[in-house]
Formats: sequence, C-alpha cells, structure tokens
Amino acid sequence: MTTYTPPVKDMNFVLNDVLQVSKYSNLPGFSDAPEDVITAILEEGGKLAANVLHPLNKVGDKEGCKLNPDDASVTTPTGFKEAYGQYREGGWGGLSFDPEYGGQGLPHVLAIAVQEMFSACNHAFIMYPGLALAAANALHAHGSDEQKQTYLPKIISGEWGGTMNLTEPHCGTDLGMLRTKAAPQGDGSYKISGQKIWISAGEHDMVDNVVHLVLARIEGAPEGVKGISLFVVPKYLVNDDGSLGERNKLQCGGLEEKMGIHGNATCVMNYDEATGWLVGEENKGLAAMFVMMNEARLGTAVQGLAASEISYQNAAAYANDRIQGRALTGPKAPEKQADPIIVHPDVRRMLMDQRATLEGGRAWLYWSALQADLEHKSEDDETKVKADDYLGLMTPVLKAYLTDKGFDHASTALQVLGGSGYTQEWGMEQFVRDARIAMIYEGANGIQALDLVGRKLPKNGGRAIQAFFADIDQFVSDNQGNEELKPFVEGLTSAKADLADATAWLMQNAFQNPDNAGAASTDYLHLFGLVCLAHGWAQLAKAAIERRGEGGDTVFFENKLITGKYFLARILPEKSSHLAKIKSGAEPVMALDAEAFMAS
Amino acid sequence: MTTYTPPVKDMNFVLNDVLQVSKYSNLPGFSDAPEDVITAILEEGGKLAANVLHPLNKVGDKEGCKLNPDDASVTTPTGFKEAYGQYREGGWGGLSFDPEYGGQGLPHVLAIAVQEMFSACNHAFIMYPGLALAAANALHAHGSDEQKQTYLPKIISGEWGGTMNLTEPHCGTDLGMLRTKAAPQGDGSYKISGQKIWISAGEHDMVDNVVHLVLARIEGAPEGVKGISLFVVPKYLVNDDGSLGERNKLQCGGLEEKMGIHGNATCVMNYDEATGWLVGEENKGLAAMFVMMNEARLGTAVQGLAASEISYQNAAAYANDRIQGRALTGPKAPEKQADPIIVHPDVRRMLMDQRATLEGGRAWLYWSALQADLEHKSEDDETKVKADDYLGLMTPVLKAYLTDKGFDHASTALQVLGGSGYTQEWGMEQFVRDARIAMIYEGANGIQALDLVGRKLPKNGGRAIQAFFADIDQFVSDNQGNEELKPFVEGLTSAKADLADATAWLMQNAFQNPDNAGAASTDYLHLFGLVCLAHGWAQLAKAAIERRGEGGDTVFFENKLITGKYFLARILPEKSSHLAKIKSGAEPVMALDAEAFMAS
Repeated sequence: MTTYTPPVKDMNFVLNDVLQVSKYSNLPGFSDAPEDVITAILEEGGKLAANVLHPLNKVGDKEGCKLNPDDASVTTPTGFKEAYGQYREGGWGGLSFDPEYGGQGLPHVLAIAVQEMFSACNHAFIMYPGLALAAANALHAHGSDEQKQTYLPKIISGEWGGTMNLTEPHCGTDLGMLRTKAAPQGDGSYKISGQKIWISAGEHDMVDNVVHLVLARIEGAPEGVKGISLFVVPKYLVNDDGSLGERNKLQCGGLEEKMGIHGNATCVMNYDEATGWLVGEENKGLAAMFVMMNEARLGTAVQGLAASEISYQNAAAYANDRIQGRALTGPKAPEKQADPIIVHPDVRRMLMDQRATLEGGRAWLYWSALQADLEHKSEDDETKVKADDYLGLMTPVLKAYLTDKGFDHASTALQVLGGSGYTQEWGMEQFVRDARIAMIYEGANGIQALDLVGRKLPKNGGRAIQAFFADIDQFVSDNQGNEELKPFVEGLTSAKADLADATAWLMQNAFQNPDNAGAASTDYLHLFGLVCLAHGWAQLAKAAIERRGEGGDTVFFENKLITGKYFLARILPEKSSHLAKIKSGAEPVMALDAEAFMAS
Repeated sequence: MTTYTPPVKDMNFVLNDVLQVSKYSNLPGFSDAPEDVITAILEEGGKLAANVLHPLNKVGDKEGCKLNPDDASVTTPTGFKEAYGQYREGGWGGLSFDPEYGGQGLPHVLAIAVQEMFSACNHAFIMYPGLALAAANALHAHGSDEQKQTYLPKIISGEWGGTMNLTEPHCGTDLGMLRTKAAPQGDGSYKISGQKIWISAGEHDMVDNVVHLVLARIEGAPEGVKGISLFVVPKYLVNDDGSLGERNKLQCGGLEEKMGIHGNATCVMNYDEATGWLVGEENKGLAAMFVMMNEARLGTAVQGLAASEISYQNAAAYANDRIQGRALTGPKAPEKQADPIIVHPDVRRMLMDQRATLEGGRAWLYWSALQADLEHKSEDDETKVKADDYLGLMTPVLKAYLTDKGFDHASTALQVLGGSGYTQEWGMEQFVRDARIAMIYEGANGIQALDLVGRKLPKNGGRAIQAFFADIDQFVSDNQGNEELKPFVEGLTSAKADLADATAWLMQNAFQNPDNAGAASTDYLHLFGLVCLAHGWAQLAKAAIERRGEGGDTVFFENKLITGKYFLARILPEKSSHLAKIKSGAEPVMALDAEAFMAS
C-alpha cells in the first residue's frame, strides 16, 4: 500500500552541486565515480530498493522470523532470501569497501546515499548486510592479515554474514560489567562462554556462515572496561582452504518479540565454549569495537533520515489524493466534492516540517560521510585530522538528532493520514514502529548526548567544535554580499551564536558540577543539530541560487529556497527554547529525591 | 510485567486542596461526595483498575478481538467479559449519570478521576463502556422521553452498549459528504442503509444489545452538513415491555487491524435497511452528535493523561531498579556494581518532563471537568455561561495537548528502558501504540487546533478567552505578596502575555488571510496548553504552600513545588518558539505548489 520513489534528484543535487564530490577526484575511488556514474549507481540502487526491498517490507513485518526448535536455525520472512541474492549479485555489500578484499572502493558518501534508499524501503532487511559490513569494518581495522584474508572476502561478497555481540542481560550501556568469558587454549584460540542478547541478524538462513564479533573477558583480565577483549567467533569454523568446517558451539537461544523491525532476527546468542580468536590486542576490545560502533552510528543516522523520507513521501501522496473539506481561502478543486487535504495549512505544516528537516539533514549527513572519505583516503595529514575531528564530533549529533526526527516524522506522517494511518493496511504505523528502534540501538540517544558533551566537545581542548565554528564564520564572511542568501546567512549566524553561548555556559558550569553537563546534554545536542541543519541549508541555498542562475530546472531550485526558508521561519526558532533549558542548569532536574519518583 | 499504583494521593490533592470541591456542596450530587467518600471511591476504582483491568491489558493486546464469520459476532479477549461484569456490578458506568435513569449523580470531576485510572490500566477495555456512556449522554440531551426510558437505564446499568457512527470510507472529518441514507417509513421509524467504518465497540460479546447512534441523511434532505440527522439504531429492536425483540438489519462487516488498542473491536458496520428512529430534530444531527463529541473529547484527554501516568510510573520504577554506569558526580550506590540509572541527569530529565506535564495537566483537566459540573448543575446563569464558555474553549486544547503529550510521554518512558522498552515483554511499547490513537480519534489534533482558532476563540467576540485572561489576572493580582509563589506567578504572567500577543496577532492577521490562522493553529494550541499548565501549576503551588504550612506530609508538598519549578525552568520556555512560529505567518507554510510535494 505504501509507495517509494528514490529521491535521486535530491541526492544528485547534494552530491554534485552542494558537496561537489568531483572536486575530490584525487582521492582513491572518487575518480571512478564521476557524475554520470553516481547517477547510474543511484538509479540502480533505487530500483533494487523500490522494486525488490520495498514490496517485502510489510511481508517482513507480518511474518517476522521463526526460530526452528530442532536445530536453532532461523527462517527469515518469505522473499528475504531471494532479495538478498539480488543484493549480493549486485555487489551492493562492498560498494565502498577495500578492493583488496573484493570491495569496489567507491566513495563512502555514495554508499551512504545508496544505503538511505535500501533502509527507507526495508529497515529490517538492510540490517542483515549492514551488520555484516560493520563487522567487516572492525576486522579490517583491527584483524590480523590472516583474519582479514579468511573472513573479509566472504563477508563482502555476501556469502557470510556478521554481527556485533556487546549486550548481556545485565549490561548494555555499561559494558564494564560484562561477564562473557574467554579461556585461552594455548594454541592461539579461546573458548568463549556466555550469553549475549539483542544480537541483530545473529542467526538466519540467507548466508552460509555468520561471523560473530564478540566482546568477552579473558580469564584473569582486569575488571571493568579495561579487561574487555574482542573475538571473532564464526558459526562454522573455517578450514585452511577456506571451506566450512565444524559447527562452532554457539547457537541462537531465542528471538526477541519487538515493537517493530520484525523482519530482522534479534537473537539471544548462547556461547558454550565456542572457539574464537582474539581480534587486535588483549583488553583493548572496546576500542576495536568502537570502529564498528562509529560506522554503525552513522548507519543508524541514515535509518533516521530514511524513515523521514519514506514516511514523508507517503503522507504527501495521501494529502494530494484524499479529499476532505474546503480550503479556508475558498475551494481549490471546485469540480470535486471537496479539496485535497494538502490545501489545509496545518497539513502543509506537517509535511514541511518533515521535508525541511530531511533535506537539510541529507546535506549535513552526506557532508559528514564525505569526511569519512577524507579521513580514510586523504594524503594530507591536516585534512585527515580535521575530517576525523568533524566525524567524531558529528557522529553522536547525527545519530541522535536524525533518529529522533525519523521517529517524529513517521508519527507526523501517520497523523496526515488520520485514522487510516493508524490501521495496519496503510503501512504508516509500521514506519513508526520500525523507526523507534533507531533512537535506542547503537547507543541510546541520551548516551549520544552524553558522548557529545562529555567526550567529543572537550576532546583536544575543543579543537573540533572550534574548527566547525571557524568554518561557519568563513562561510558567513565569504557570503556577506549575497543578498538572496542573506536570510540563510543570518539564520546560521544567530544559530551559531546560540550554540557558542551554550558551549561557553557548559565550559563554565560543567567543571563545577558535572550534572550541569548531563542535564543540558540532550537540549545541547538538539541545539547542535539545528545549527548543523542551518549550516546544511545555507549550503543548499547557495548551490540552488548558483545553479538556478545557469538555467535548467529553475522550479527545483526555487523550491529548495522555499523549503529552506520554511526551516528558518518554522524550525530554527526551537533553538531559543533549547538554550533556555540548557542554561537553567542541573538544579531543577536533580532536586527531587530518587525515592520521590516512585508511585505511592 | 508493567505496574500501576493508583495515584489517589495526587488526585485527592487536586480535588480537595486545589479545586476544593467541598465548596460546591450546594450543587446536586456534590453533597454526596465529601472528602472521605471521594477517597473511598478513588480507592475502590483504583483496585478495579490495578487488580482487574491492568492484568488484562497485555492479554487484550496479544489476543485482540475475533470476528466470527458464522454470525458476524465479535469475541473480546479472554477475561474482558468477566472484568466487564465486575465493572458493571460496581456501578462504575453511571457514576455521574442522572439518577433518574439509574446513575449515581456524583460529580463529573470525580468520574473523570476514576476514568483516568481505568484508562491508564486498560485503554482498549475502557473504550467499551466509554462509548456507551457517550451515547447515553447524547440520548439524554436530545432523545425523546420514550427513547430515554427505553435505552438509558439499560446502558447505564451496563447491560447494553452504545456507539457513535460517524465515519464512512470517504469521509471522516468532512461529514458533509456522508451518504448513509434514512428512508422514512411513515410510522415514525426509518430504514437506515449505508456503511460506517472505525466504529469502536461496534459489536462485542459483553452486552446483550448495542445501541448505535448513527448519522444519516433523510431522503430529500439538503446536501452537506445541513442535511444530516441522528438516529438511534439498536442491534436488537426493543419490545414495548423492554425485552429484546427482532434482530435489526445491521452487522459487523469486518474488524480493523490497527497499530494498537487491539483489545477494542474497531468495526466496519453495515446497515441494510436497519430500523432506526430519529433523535432530536431532522437535519440537526450534527449538533446533537456534538454533545457526544464534547464528552468524548474530554474522555480522550483523560486517555492522554492516563498514558502519561502509567508510562511514567513504569519508567520511574525501572530507573530506580536498573543499575548501569556511575553518577557523573561519583558513585551513589557504592555497594553495588553500578548506580541505578536514575542518578543520571538525562534520565531525570525524561522522568521530570513527564511528571511535570502530567501533574500540571491533571490540575487543568480536573478543573475543566468541574466546569462541566457547574455548567450542568449550577442554578446561577452567569456561572453556567462562564463554565460553558470555558469548557468549549478548553476542550480542543485539552484533547490535543494531553493526547500529544500522552504519546510523547509513552515514547519517552520507553526510552528510559532502552532496548527493554522496545521488546514486547516489558509492555512499554504497547503504551506507545495504544496512546497513538488518541491523537487521531474524536477529531484529529489538527482539527482540534482549527476548532480552537476558527470557532472557539472568536465565538461571542472572544468572551471565553477574555474571561480566562481575567481569571489569570485576578490570580496574579491576588497573589502578588506571596514571595514563595512568585516564580509561579511570574511564569504565569509571562506565559499569558505570550498567549495574549499570539491572540492579538491572530485577530489582526486571520481576517486578512484565513491561512494565517490555519498555519498558526497547532502552535497556538500548544502555546495555549502551556499557559493552562502554568495556570494549573500556579494553583497547585499555592495549595501546596498553604497545606505545607498546616504540617502533615510536608515532603509531598515540597515535591509539588520542586516539580512545578521544573515545569517553569524546563517546559515553559517552549512558549517562545511557538510564538515565533505563529508570527511567521502562512507564507512559509503555503509557498510551495501542491504538486511540488510529490516525489519525482
């Protein structure tokens, strides 16, 4: 019942006109992706998304996954396996991965755009290859040569899957408490024992093997986070010739029943003296896992944006189609019994809220993904450091802001459909249920906010945010004379001023009482997100003005400016309330005794 | 897995200390409800809610309702029928209904408090008697004596159910388009034919008969809303002696699969020359139905508040129990491996957001319910008119604001539980799914906003809002000398000033372009809601200060003041962003062409 049109035109505009990725043709992989190749890849990816993954979205939700008690295998929903075959054959899994292991080495920013379409069409499905890729990235960064040769080509080809095993029943956020044990066997291998929960794609029928990356504590290791190591624990052991050997002693002990993403198998994984091998150094597992986490967090931000896009598209289509009542300013479709509901300003408000955030968010997200390319591929140290700073700073903001909005937008889109939105038939409520998880996994959004104010902000004496502010100042100064851009420059300037104000307040008050940082963290993150959107919109508007001057599809560029002005008038004002809340400090938040929260 | 403690203490505080309902003992029914009786009724209702309805909440969600193809009957979830029996035996259905028809005639404000507990514990269940009561209210207001005698005692005793039949597949909000026909039979009866959808409690196995109130168009009636009449169409015709007669020609044609409230039967109702009788005057059906709608909208506001309360309680319990990480200011539970997560300011923020809104919201909602008592029962015309004005003005604000917040809070509470919140096992995600409907039914929240700015605000030259402003001014002037109350008085003053500003802006700009009202409507409603919360908190704080002076549970009163100050510091600042959005006018909202919203 739902519909999806790949937003290739918008993506092309961001990639080619705003980010101008062709400027980076000196970087490996970028010269392979000129404009026409980018368009072709986006269009091909869009076809797979819209024609193959999208029709399976509801199937996955309805059927869910089934655990077969006989052999603890997991059956994915009807059609998933065949769709995964097409995904694999298209080479989508390794689009931007290292060519040495079978990847195509294309720009990461392009892979992110493709991922957006897949995620929009089938959140539950894309998690399978998404987790596999995250595991591959961690092995690529921290694995031995042998481990890389053994696992990476098979994961990148899509023959094998991969997972991240962090959470245990008693610990999720606080991994220092984890209990899974690793007993060294003297031959370089370890016996891994323990229970992990909420393991997405932990067991399923679409791949021949699953490569689990597992956090565990080597016997005798220090307590807390300093005693955690990372292990690779394949479902099937791998023979020297690369063929599959013995079944490892691990299995899926149950599937979680969840609010959404029913098409993805969320597994309890039981390790009972399973054979594993250390990845990276002993007791440095958390750092190695963070490579996965950062990639995964950017991927989660993509899911938020994708939820905004597909829910927006369906709400807009309904609003143009459904007739009900008349425009306040007189009939707009007098030939019909009523006007389409898009004539109503409050319906417009809902649609514009979604659209203005998602278009600005796309510019911001893709720009951030480009920083990942620069960080990995640039040969200039200064560029690499700056890109790394940016990415570290932006990752928690992107993850939390865009997933908060993805859920909000899915819910707003449901509201546009009224009662129909609440029925399963129309598919909108699935978007809401699926989008809800992204605010939680890969670090709950409150944890992202704490990561931002507690770690990313003060890191290297605030170098990252100072560089971001300097970039904004540069943009503002470069564009002072541009009369049409003026509202965007002014909006960005005032937003940056508020963020600078909030940052100064944090520096002054967090040292004296760390709870001031904690109490401010989520509002600070949302204020930060608004500044990033203002930054994104200023760049979108500049490119639109320039491109419009060259002729072509002037309506497209005009509409960008209209949408950007909506952002300035109707979304950016939220910054003031965030600033006021931040500056009210920890006292109102912490004043009640903990016991007073309990019902009595 | 979820828990519920009836908030009797908080309810008592609002009823007895803030609203001082004992002052109204001159009104019929109020003298029957002194403090000790109020407490006894709240405690008894709380027991039914917590011990009977709450355990069935998950059952209802899991099992849903079943349509039996043989006879089109509907089976409710296991246990619902028995629970309904207890509800009926307790006389809960007619708590505040006219004693002439078997009701107890107690204050409506007390019935609302009881309804809050029932709704918190089982949203889907309470809709069955809720709709029946709404139908009874409409019959009481507009039915003939014979109709009242025939139907009301049976509905109030709980033997029969009742429904509201408005929506048809092609029309919900815009009832002018409805097509259901009524053919006069010459004997005072009509043959009703047509299809109605989304009929909550339309068919079920807990009652012997269902009294449908159906909007239909009498043959030859004018087009549009001026040709709609209201009919009573019972499932079984009623013999002269009150016994059940012939089965009427109507049946349930299907059950809607929905996001939530699975325990309630949402029916397609097919009328095929069913026998019905006119209620009230020909072609005045919409006005008669609005009596139901207003009651139902207040009831929906209660559902929003109830969702906030139960989701808050469960989040607070989890936050006190779950250990994870350490407080930023050093360990708070050094004897444990980690601190309970309630030590974290961002967790506190989430809980305080819920609590501060719901406690202020309860004061506001109950105060509004008291206006319904005054409107119906006062013998003073001026009091009646003022109460009627208030209730008309507040109903859309209460309905939309409290249901928006009910959903937000349920989602926030889920977030406190992290991954556990997303699993079905913990029950939090059901609160989110169930709460979502209240933003839609009984008039989608955008329609409430339009009702507020388009009808309620300008009605009688703005008499209602001027009276509200005058009350606020009076409160402010009466309490100028109260030093401890000062922040509350100041918060209320500045909030009122913003609302007055926004109201003046609307008056100046809506006439010139009605889209300015439409574009502002939702932000105006939310600004209005914040002023009402500020008003509620000022009254709560005043009562808390006074009662604390008398000794007793001083911690309880101190906590009220702390929570109120959180509202002032952390929630009320949102008013500024609403005001800025309102004043940006319709232009940014309406500037895009309708076609530009479609994906391309």
